[in-house]
Amino acid sequence: MSYSKSFDRCVRELSRLPGIGKKTAIRLSMHLLKMSMKDVEDLSSSIYNLKRDTRFCLKCGSISDEDICEICLDKNRDNTVICVVEEAKDIFLIESSGKFGGLYHVLGGRLAPLDGITPDDLRIGSLLKRIEEDGVKEIILATNPDVEGDTTAIYLYKLISKRYNSVKVTRIATGVPIGGYLEYVDEITILKSLENRREMG
Amino acid sequence: MSYSKSFDRCVRELSRLPGIGKKTAIRLSMHLLKMSMKDVEDLSSSIYNLKRDTRFCLKCGSISDEDICEICLDKNRDNTVICVVEEAKDIFLIESSGKFGGLYHVLGGRLAPLDGITPDDLRIGSLLKRIEEDGVKEIILATNPDVEGDTTAIYLYKLISKRYNSVKVTRIATGVPIGGYLEYVDEITILKSLENRREMG
Repeated sequence: MSYSKSFDRCVRELSRLPGIGKKTAIRLSMHLLKMSMKDVEDLSSSIYNLKRDTRFCLKCGSISDEDICEICLDKNRDNTVICVVEEAKDIFLIESSGKFGGLYHVLGGRLAPLDGITPDDLRIGSLLKRIEEDGVKEIILATNPDVEGDTTAIYLYKLISKRYNSVKVTRIATGVPIGGYLEYVDEITILKSLENRREMG
Repeated sequence: MSYSKSFDRCVRELSRLPGIGKKTAIRLSMHLLKMSMKDVEDLSSSIYNLKRDTRFCLKCGSISDEDICEICLDKNRDNTVICVVEEAKDIFLIESSGKFGGLYHVLGGRLAPLDGITPDDLRIGSLLKRIEEDGVKEIILATNPDVEGDTTAIYLYKLISKRYNSVKVTRIATGVPIGGYLEYVDEITILKSLENRREMG
């Protein structure tokens, strides 16, 4: 298409990424050609090293350079409070709001029966195991406040409050716009939604 | 920020690309983690190889795997007609419209005095050299139809028609929306704008 095999190959590879169409891939490839060799090497190796070096924390499911992530290993954090999120990237947003001192648990998605995503597809078993083994006192459900996220929260609330009636189950406050996604919200709104969390039921 | 050095590094490198903000970089990095090692290696190496293997054609300035690109070397193309574009990516768009059989010349930008881009910053000298040496009969000015692109076209028209009065200088037809950019236009519109090109002056 462009009469350069390496250019076409790069455009094809970039186009496979989510949200990057062919024209964006061409624009990015043109930009890469104008970057210094060192900057391109840094980018290329950072992509490779990410996949090589980063793994998912065996405990919370977040990303980590080690088997257990720094947050789970941090003795200064309150391991009796677990904030449950859909994806690891939601943790970074909550962390950057700066006030939450508990631990996290990544579900790896949310219930979406129409898409074939059932409780078995989420990291729920490992959450229940943590509740049992670590003396957890509160579970904060921080799934996104839309239909699937609310469904997932209600499912988890019923499951947890039935099995462990000493565990308080809370939901992040509205404040995060209804129908929205955590990742599009400012840090103050995220902080408020944690502070104003309410007990479910 | 994410408690994984390789993740943070990848986010930082991706954020340096045009049009990719921090949240997009995080989303892309999360996607990379979910891809297979082979797919990530393919992407990483395609970026590195692009920079290593692709150069700019010494004649037309387009991208190429060799010193002279395939289009310039193609004996079946009419080397007396040169289509002048701002960037190499505009060539791919014109080529995919499928009807143009001449050669190209990449300016490497357009005149923008306010941004400090003057004729000396564009590949104009090499264009004049080609007109003299290759017996060029027609120059098609396919710069974008906005203020800077039109200014660049008028500048080149005056320069070329004054020096070489046997050379016909044409401008791609309107049809490409005014104020728009070649890369956002469909192929048929690009084809029409080539067919309806008009002589300048």
